[in-house]
Amino acid sequence: VAPRAIHHLGVAVDDLDEALDTYGRLFGAELEHRETVPDQGVEAAAVRVGESRVELLAALGDESPIGKFLSKRGPGMHHVAYEVLNLAAELARLKSEGAELIDEEPRPGLYGLEVAFVHPEAVHGVLSELVSRG
Amino acid sequence: VAPRAIHHLGVAVDDLDEALDTYGRLFGAELEHRETVPDQGVEAAAVRVGESRVELLAALGDESPIGKFLSKRGPGMHHVAYEVLNLAAELARLKSEGAELIDEEPRPGLYGLEVAFVHPEAVHGVLSELVSRG
Repeated sequence: VAPRAIHHLGVAVDDLDEALDTYGRLFGAELEHRETVPDQGVEAAAVRVGESRVELLAALGDESPIGKFLSKRGPGMHHVAYEVLNLAAELARLKSEGAELIDEEPRPGLYGLEVAFVHPEAVHGVLSELVSRG
Repeated sequence: VAPRAIHHLGVAVDDLDEALDTYGRLFGAELEHRETVPDQGVEAAAVRVGESRVELLAALGDESPIGKFLSKRGPGMHHVAYEVLNLAAELARLKSEGAELIDEEPRPGLYGLEVAFVHPEAVHGVLSELVSRG
């Protein structure tokens, strides 16, 4: 089943407040959610764009996943998330297609979503996330 | 004025047919357009995802913009495009905000669109494109 939408584009940034200001000033994008997740070492803020979002991601520490990404690549696009209706079924289908999954089962994500990541090796270098409303 | 949508996510790939096969197999994404633009050294294929698209971009040569990107970064996310109603007005507004523009005027893009690129330095490392229906 094709995804319903690009749920969000995940973007790693050095400074969340500056980035929110930029997206507001340049694109008129409005804050939808903002959340700190200490377990994942990330502070996230989503700005809405139509049915989609840009999810700005700042690292809580250099050793967090976003911190390591920023050290290696600098700020920029980090992942893309597709919204699906039935996440568990899609994961089972991807597995049967031989796609390498980072998360074999849905896990809790930001804003009450269920999420799972697909390895970039399976998608030509693009870290891809599937999300569904929990 | 806020963009209406993420028009597309531009992704650089090594092999367009393989990438189309992957996006079809993993995400059920269907081909919407395919176009070769020798002037820009690119062959592009867009697959639809809701109101948005993934635009797969293959290089026609190593010295093309996508060829250079692939040599430097490998396959992966290249740019994001926002759909706006009035491209010329948005460019004038961005310019008045001091944002560095790659294209100061709308120019013809793929599939009959009018497009302009904003420099990644202006958007925290994300090459950003504005598009409007021509």
